[in-house]
Amino acid sequence: MSHTTPEVTVRLATESPDRSYPIHIGRGLLSQGNVLRSLVGNRSVCLVTNVTVAPLFQSSILDALHDTGTTGRKVTVVELPDGEEHKTLASYERILTAALEDQHERSAVFIALGGGVIGDMTGFAAASFLRGADFIQVPTTLLSQVDSSVGGKTGVNHPMGKNLIGAFHQPIGVIIDTVTLETLPDREYAAGMAEVIKYGLIADANFFDYLIQHTEALLGRDEALVAEVIARCCAIKADVVKRDEREGGVRAILNFGHTFGHAIEKEQGFGVWLHGEAVAAGMSIAARISAGRGAISDDTVMTLTNFLHAFSLPTKAPDGMGMEAFMSAMQGDKKVQAGQIRYVLLESLGQAFVSSGLNESEIARNL
Amino acid sequence: MSHTTPEVTVRLATESPDRSYPIHIGRGLLSQGNVLRSLVGNRSVCLVTNVTVAPLFQSSILDALHDTGTTGRKVTVVELPDGEEHKTLASYERILTAALEDQHERSAVFIALGGGVIGDMTGFAAASFLRGADFIQVPTTLLSQVDSSVGGKTGVNHPMGKNLIGAFHQPIGVIIDTVTLETLPDREYAAGMAEVIKYGLIADANFFDYLIQHTEALLGRDEALVAEVIARCCAIKADVVKRDEREGGVRAILNFGHTFGHAIEKEQGFGVWLHGEAVAAGMSIAARISAGRGAISDDTVMTLTNFLHAFSLPTKAPDGMGMEAFMSAMQGDKKVQAGQIRYVLLESLGQAFVSSGLNESEIARNL
Repeated sequence: MSHTTPEVTVRLATESPDRSYPIHIGRGLLSQGNVLRSLVGNRSVCLVTNVTVAPLFQSSILDALHDTGTTGRKVTVVELPDGEEHKTLASYERILTAALEDQHERSAVFIALGGGVIGDMTGFAAASFLRGADFIQVPTTLLSQVDSSVGGKTGVNHPMGKNLIGAFHQPIGVIIDTVTLETLPDREYAAGMAEVIKYGLIADANFFDYLIQHTEALLGRDEALVAEVIARCCAIKADVVKRDEREGGVRAILNFGHTFGHAIEKEQGFGVWLHGEAVAAGMSIAARISAGRGAISDDTVMTLTNFLHAFSLPTKAPDGMGMEAFMSAMQGDKKVQAGQIRYVLLESLGQAFVSSGLNESEIARNL
Repeated sequence: MSHTTPEVTVRLATESPDRSYPIHIGRGLLSQGNVLRSLVGNRSVCLVTNVTVAPLFQSSILDALHDTGTTGRKVTVVELPDGEEHKTLASYERILTAALEDQHERSAVFIALGGGVIGDMTGFAAASFLRGADFIQVPTTLLSQVDSSVGGKTGVNHPMGKNLIGAFHQPIGVIIDTVTLETLPDREYAAGMAEVIKYGLIADANFFDYLIQHTEALLGRDEALVAEVIARCCAIKADVVKRDEREGGVRAILNFGHTFGHAIEKEQGFGVWLHGEAVAAGMSIAARISAGRGAISDDTVMTLTNFLHAFSLPTKAPDGMGMEAFMSAMQGDKKVQAGQIRYVLLESLGQAFVSSGLNESEIARNL
């Protein structure tokens, strides 16, 4: 396993130049601390993390922040319970109350140390703290490294569905330390791989082939390879987001597998299936529908299925979850427009499009 | 009293053209309904109001929305309790839950029918509903008509202070029907007049003189005069906001009287003093400090005091609220920067500036 992965910087050029930010990827970035320090400057910090991640990486962050020259920096730590079921307005309020009680100012920097749940909640809290403070993403799961930490979507769940309350708020930087993957449980690692293969399916057929060819090395978590893969995913996502920050159009293709996936998560109860697991099943359904229309070959579907199975990811709807449950769960999704559920399908391998014209039988026979 | 006031349209040209919006001021705009209908189009609506305002104007809005041609429009009504003490995350959550349970889509339009509390909460709910929906301000108090409905500041209070959680989110339009002032209690009307005279003090000496000369007619609520005054206030505020939407600089002058005012509101308990009453006292304190520095004359301070007294507004800190209580309350204000409390003072009548260099004795002797 390589221990010298390159540090990659992706610049996200959205509409205004001040909304560009670097994504640093490398081994040991947290313990080195200089990237974090240069982003934070001498400002006060509200560090948000969870009970699982805190014992692993919190001390690196605190050490970096309390380096000489910045003694006396105010740092508030908010430690939340772990899990999608805690991605609520109540947790969001806890973050804000902690920051307000410690009397941070508008210049404070929020740091999200954890997976997508922590990143989304912290980003939303930062967006609304005194009407807008800066935040930094320090994603510690593969899934959040390749997906939720890039692009500025923040928010919390509501009993009616996932991510229904939130804001578009871009971080001032993303720090991806590949060391965090060493302690990531297999199930979480696999869930991230579902989002990784998604980028191949929707945007880059060569990347899809590359991933398939390197299945074994990915299973073995070859660190240099994984770092490269993360960088490629971030670059694809940044490219899509810069063309459509607020999801007026092309950004919707990133939701490939997510309409079905969110329905599964909601039906099962948040946190029962991991987000990446639900997306794996949702992508498989969408891929089979696409194949049924002749857009991709049955071979490609089989290749995808085998890849997902290699990571013990599901490729079908949960037992007993039928058409009716899907339709009812999907009606409440953010992606509904003018009463039509919007599905993302493939028009070929590496090319996706948004469709609202799916008939129920097409869905039913591919669940 | 005139019954034909002109309809005024102020265009707020912020950084991007799609953030301009009209402010319609006129008599009978709600019962006519066409302005509202043209802003809403055929979209679904989430109407947020309170128990005081609902019986007065809700039916006009519903009639306008259910006009022929738009039968079947989905309209959700959220009726909240009245008062600053209900400007909380809990009320914000009630709005979002109602909108989500009725399965509104991102294209839904939120309408805020009420005073500043309703407007601020509805705007923040719209800002975070599915990460951003449109909203329309229909302010029904003088204070919200001349102040909070323009400029896009939205949010809720927190036990630590006022408006500490929120977003910058501009409405797609503001509809000010002067009919709403007929049922406005005297105390609320007077509170609005505090913000009106503020615009003269900070931005327009001629407007200040004009208001003083028309004190009697303003006390009599001369409708044509009040409509003109509202338009002038909106124009001043729009001009300041368009130069500095996010309060990086000049916008801060709008906070004249507010640093002391917020401290009073917080110390007394939200809702005990009306916001405009606290601002009246805060402005008086700031004006006396400014006069103590020779920036304005003692005559001007006396003229201001007499004007405020004519409307039964306070011009001093509450009995028993001393220096210590002010300093402790002000430390938690959003306007604190690098540990320094920022005060807005006058450099002359009609000109304000932001100062952080106030010594405590200057404050203490002017409370």
